[in-house]
Amino acid sequence: MIYLDNAATTKPDKECLKAAEKYLYEDYFNPSSLYKDGYKLQAEIKAAKTNILSFIANTDNYDLTFTSGGTEADNQAIFCGGKRGNIVVSSGEHSAVFASANETKQRGLEVRFAKIKSDGSVDVENLLSLIDDKTSLVSVIHVNNETGAINDIFDIAKKVKLKNKYTLFHSDGVQAFGKIPFKLTNDIDLYSISAHKIGGVKGCGALIRKKRAIIKPYIYGGGQEQGLRSGTENLFAIKDFEFAAVKKYSTIKNNYQLVLNLQEKLWEKLDKQLFTRISALTCSPYILSVSAEGVRGETILHEADDLGLLIGTGSACSSNEKKRFSRTIIACGYPESVADGVLRLSLSPEITLDEILKAAEILNKIVSNRRAIMA
Amino acid sequence: MIYLDNAATTKPDKECLKAAEKYLYEDYFNPSSLYKDGYKLQAEIKAAKTNILSFIANTDNYDLTFTSGGTEADNQAIFCGGKRGNIVVSSGEHSAVFASANETKQRGLEVRFAKIKSDGSVDVENLLSLIDDKTSLVSVIHVNNETGAINDIFDIAKKVKLKNKYTLFHSDGVQAFGKIPFKLTNDIDLYSISAHKIGGVKGCGALIRKKRAIIKPYIYGGGQEQGLRSGTENLFAIKDFEFAAVKKYSTIKNNYQLVLNLQEKLWEKLDKQLFTRISALTCSPYILSVSAEGVRGETILHEADDLGLLIGTGSACSSNEKKRFSRTIIACGYPESVADGVLRLSLSPEITLDEILKAAEILNKIVSNRRAIMA
Repeated sequence: MIYLDNAATTKPDKECLKAAEKYLYEDYFNPSSLYKDGYKLQAEIKAAKTNILSFIANTDNYDLTFTSGGTEADNQAIFCGGKRGNIVVSSGEHSAVFASANETKQRGLEVRFAKIKSDGSVDVENLLSLIDDKTSLVSVIHVNNETGAINDIFDIAKKVKLKNKYTLFHSDGVQAFGKIPFKLTNDIDLYSISAHKIGGVKGCGALIRKKRAIIKPYIYGGGQEQGLRSGTENLFAIKDFEFAAVKKYSTIKNNYQLVLNLQEKLWEKLDKQLFTRISALTCSPYILSVSAEGVRGETILHEADDLGLLIGTGSACSSNEKKRFSRTIIACGYPESVADGVLRLSLSPEITLDEILKAAEILNKIVSNRRAIMA
Repeated sequence: MIYLDNAATTKPDKECLKAAEKYLYEDYFNPSSLYKDGYKLQAEIKAAKTNILSFIANTDNYDLTFTSGGTEADNQAIFCGGKRGNIVVSSGEHSAVFASANETKQRGLEVRFAKIKSDGSVDVENLLSLIDDKTSLVSVIHVNNETGAINDIFDIAKKVKLKNKYTLFHSDGVQAFGKIPFKLTNDIDLYSISAHKIGGVKGCGALIRKKRAIIKPYIYGGGQEQGLRSGTENLFAIKDFEFAAVKKYSTIKNNYQLVLNLQEKLWEKLDKQLFTRISALTCSPYILSVSAEGVRGETILHEADDLGLLIGTGSACSSNEKKRFSRTIIACGYPESVADGVLRLSLSPEITLDEILKAAEILNKIVSNRRAIMA
């Protein structure tokens, strides 16, 4: 089986799982309990925060709240960061931001969607033109989850702050964290990350927050996470997330180069008569979006599945939306015929060159057969 | 080590963990992905829902949405069930309901708190008197998480519906599910449960919902869980929850009797000169709340900890609230001197009679020593 759907979820790292297992079998106590075994776990959560934060932020200025995943982190950012007036988000946001932003209309806010360019990156001029003195939040995805386009969120956030220094700037970093080397700059107020996209387990993410950025909780209750996120802390998933992050960051630059080589080879081997590249050349190496115009992506996916190759069409999340075309690909300006044939091939450092060659061969064969049938 | 803090969290069942491990190591795919391995997992989620539901509800009339835990389920019930006008909740609610209810004031609702009786159960007459034609939601905890008081939610819900048939009735069943035998009656619209209180893992719960009760999602995004709860499904935790529920329900009546015997023995062996019983005689056998009036509960907790006995004071969740006295115990009508000395001793079927005898001995010794020092 060749797994090219790593943007949907990654295989949990076995070594990390083994190290985290003790939080299931032994250290299972409620971290809010007042005896030593509970208290110790509270300290372990704190250590996990500092450790994870340290890879991308100055721990003096930033703090981290564990959530049940990237989606919840995005929801907290949008619903609790977008306090009043209007919010501005890109049209290339993950559904966790896009759908939340839409919902804020029901909660009395105005939502403005910024255009995106053909590679899925935000049109910065258009974004800036939408910001005014009533803009309480701007959200721009760091690495687009469908096309892999990298938004220069540091430059964008700086420009946003020049237009309105009171606007909170949030970025969904789920496809960037642990993959793309970067450090958060002072203009980034909120940043969402997820464990299961980097070899951690599902059910854990975090909202990173500039300490000076005051936001409300979204989940209320016992007051865990300094009151910012209630609910018994999921220590197993939190520690596993920490271990996965440590592992990823120990070799992030090597991984980047490795995956870039795989991505380049994959694109090189795909038949250019059959596939149009959607992803920019400057996109994240972890994602390659292509379209077999005129052939349904879902059909290709199922045929590839039968041949042992697992791929995505749009985002795995949006497969629930029961829409035929990817909202993002349409917003990129592509016609429906291209959107219909989109495949998302998403990589990981564990994939071998042989698997890449085999995957390209399978995809070329499926699409050329389909084209032959259609012709 | 004697663990009498099972209401805070239970030790995850080893057998269930072993059975669920394959969803970490092998079947790690995104359940929203369209290939067979993903699709299969979607079917496994569906099976888990039906299985869990079947123990307490008619699966023709009820559905279940997996959440990140009981707290999130409660939040969704309160914020999405309480749509307009006023909501009525008991003063003995878990913080996940209590704090959410309080927050709805910021969202334009009126909140009315019903009185509770000395055992922590709701004063039904008072509750009913607060309901009017503008009441959109009533929430009454099934088993009080601090005192173990069992509210007859079936009778209460029936009476609520007689006062206002449009009012949604929610109950937090986190301390009841898998412990107290019951079946949901038609008057219960929403019911919250949690995995880690019955031998499952942290980070998983569910909001059970009468199919005819329409509520909005609280977490927005990719549209998982039929649009009612977005975010990649935490299959490992979901299947582990299912396995834990199957195990608990296979022997729920035996467990009930077993734990009742333990609870009775524990109370029998506690020195009545030293301890006042808070829990009613009709309370859940899984919780015994007592007070060593005049001696701080936290002091007893720490001394017991040193002697290898782990207990709680109030709810583990409320230990984050940095309040000296339990909100619930005060609402029961006890003076601060009693509230200060409250201990929550919470049981499980895995505890032995020997452990119970030893625990009573330790507690008697600690409190009599303290009393001697004070005298």
